Amino acid sequence: MSDSTSIGIVTPQVAHFSEPLALKSGEVLPQFDLIYETYGTLNADKSNAVIICHALAGNHHVAGIHKVDDKHPGWWDNLIGPGRPLDTDRFFVIGLNNLGGCHGSTGPSSINPFTQKQWGANFPVLTVEDWVASQARLISYLGIEKLAAVVGGSLGGMQALQWTLSFPERVAHSLVIASAPNLTAQNMAFNEVARQAIITDPEFHGGDYYEHGVVPRRGLRIARMLGHITYLSDDAMGAKFGRKLRGDEIKYSFDVEFEMESYLRYQGDKFAGEFDANTYLRMTRALDYFDPAFDFGGDLAAAFKRAKAKFLVISFTSDWRFAPARSREIVQALLDNQLSVSYAEVTAPYGHDAFLMPDPHYHAILRAYLKKIRFGE
Amino acid sequence: MSDSTSIGIVTPQVAHFSEPLALKSGEVLPQFDLIYETYGTLNADKSNAVIICHALAGNHHVAGIHKVDDKHPGWWDNLIGPGRPLDTDRFFVIGLNNLGGCHGSTGPSSINPFTQKQWGANFPVLTVEDWVASQARLISYLGIEKLAAVVGGSLGGMQALQWTLSFPERVAHSLVIASAPNLTAQNMAFNEVARQAIITDPEFHGGDYYEHGVVPRRGLRIARMLGHITYLSDDAMGAKFGRKLRGDEIKYSFDVEFEMESYLRYQGDKFAGEFDANTYLRMTRALDYFDPAFDFGGDLAAAFKRAKAKFLVISFTSDWRFAPARSREIVQALLDNQLSVSYAEVTAPYGHDAFLMPDPHYHAILRAYLKKIRFGE
Repeated sequence: MSDSTSIGIVTPQVAHFSEPLALKSGEVLPQFDLIYETYGTLNADKSNAVIICHALAGNHHVAGIHKVDDKHPGWWDNLIGPGRPLDTDRFFVIGLNNLGGCHGSTGPSSINPFTQKQWGANFPVLTVEDWVASQARLISYLGIEKLAAVVGGSLGGMQALQWTLSFPERVAHSLVIASAPNLTAQNMAFNEVARQAIITDPEFHGGDYYEHGVVPRRGLRIARMLGHITYLSDDAMGAKFGRKLRGDEIKYSFDVEFEMESYLRYQGDKFAGEFDANTYLRMTRALDYFDPAFDFGGDLAAAFKRAKAKFLVISFTSDWRFAPARSREIVQALLDNQLSVSYAEVTAPYGHDAFLMPDPHYHAILRAYLKKIRFGE
Repeated sequence: MSDSTSIGIVTPQVAHFSEPLALKSGEVLPQFDLIYETYGTLNADKSNAVIICHALAGNHHVAGIHKVDDKHPGWWDNLIGPGRPLDTDRFFVIGLNNLGGCHGSTGPSSINPFTQKQWGANFPVLTVEDWVASQARLISYLGIEKLAAVVGGSLGGMQALQWTLSFPERVAHSLVIASAPNLTAQNMAFNEVARQAIITDPEFHGGDYYEHGVVPRRGLRIARMLGHITYLSDDAMGAKFGRKLRGDEIKYSFDVEFEMESYLRYQGDKFAGEFDANTYLRMTRALDYFDPAFDFGGDLAAAFKRAKAKFLVISFTSDWRFAPARSREIVQALLDNQLSVSYAEVTAPYGHDAFLMPDPHYHAILRAYLKKIRFGE
């Protein structure tokens, strides 16, 4: 590692929680593991901790690499490291795989202690509130009472919002990026199509495909291809692929004809070979259900009455999945409660995926905001 | 029928063409049938004919009803009839099912004369140019030399454009509604996901599912659900369904939870029970391939140099599938050739589907334009 701002090699750890977790659905998870990584050093009064909440297909491997010559650093590596916007010389950063995940935390493919078989279809449906509750257990386990900040993009941003509602005393700053106060009908419709592709795959077996030694690859592949369309803007897709042909001439067939088709199929195949379908279903359902205003008759400002954190909200102009207008709804609800909120609408062509990219303006905003955070606030 | 502006009962007819049709792909269709309907009366000099080109899932039943008490009139019935914007007291209107269709024209489920079995996978891949060529055969069959107008929305609008390029002398007016000069990468990506859902359905059998007595219902269902998302605007979906729950409370399951899910599943199931998967594949491929500028190095104005028709181009503000900017590209290319073009950008919240709806402003524009058409121009 010649880059002095890289974290270098990191090693995941697993925390076991034996006290049952009551879920929003009414179900109870008797025990669970969370896999996590940490970057930087926890200070003496444990006031410099930041938790990173991941989005739909994310995991605990947020930054650094797992071995020498690892070509794939963590998914938000461009943000986190010594001297990077989220500076590990100052902050102690925690990344975890959410409950229900498929990267080491307890999820549908874990062993159900009641049956000694894989949970499969019986694994509970989870909510953003449940994730935040499990994340609070993790920070307690690490001896941390209050987070300096919670940071998340997309579904991760929803968790960053929920932290300020579930544990108002335990989080000083909430950084909510490319997110929304709930899904629109269109957002939910895309989720539903993805789920139906998985559920109607003959190899889904009602969610108990593990027992059959198969995977609903076709459905997962379609779900991922569809997801990729919504992560990019029309313009970004146009710039990246346009109508470029894969070969020299048109073949008049249903094989790959355009570059973009090749890209989508590759992404779909890769994902279908790696990701757990039951996890995908649960991640999308958690997105659907997130709606802090629901218990307040749709009044988002009323929902945020109990929040105490300071907020940074960031949106991207070309994000049509979680459009800037949705972030402005969040900002308005926070302002209605006289909460401290900074808002930036970043001009970026990449669509929803912009939150993962090292756009200089975007990173400068994060750097400036994080630099101002005083520990023990 | 108490409504005096309805066409009333109409009866489809079939025209048989025994002369082979050379297709753009290089394949030759040895013979074919086209099913069609007509409304109004062809005048003495056969100068009042209008052809309606259908979109992805349309057919020849454009207006009127098939029997007394028929609850479902043709798909563009609100536009066509005595006194309606496309006035059948003046015009002789022709609706047809495109070649490759599944409503009576020769298509993948028809008998292949070479094998005496259903065409299936061997049915050729078609293009917009091929459709227009077959439509020209149909109007010749009806004794019509030149059309007063060709009218189409979406993929139908592409055919209306192509008519002016393939047969510049045979069409006086081209009405191009909610269309585009080609698909964007995002448009093509949605098509590809839909096709992959169909093609990877285990009951697709490489396109020869007829022989197996099955239908790739799962894939067609996903394709249609996805289609419906792109036909509506986010706002229209929000207004129609929002986050409305189907039941009284959240069930925390993957069953129908929101009204919008119920709608999508219903639409998907209905379509999968009616439409032919091989037709769907070909319709989406024709959309992908349409690109009149392709042979002119991407110069759309150069492509339209040979056009002679007068044009009405209409787009809808909330159409994100074929956005107004795409219609403006068409208008610019026509203006660059000093062609006569009227353009209207209609403020309508319904998304792409707006072209099928009786929006008063939209219909007033069509009525005014069509009224001005002089026969024999």
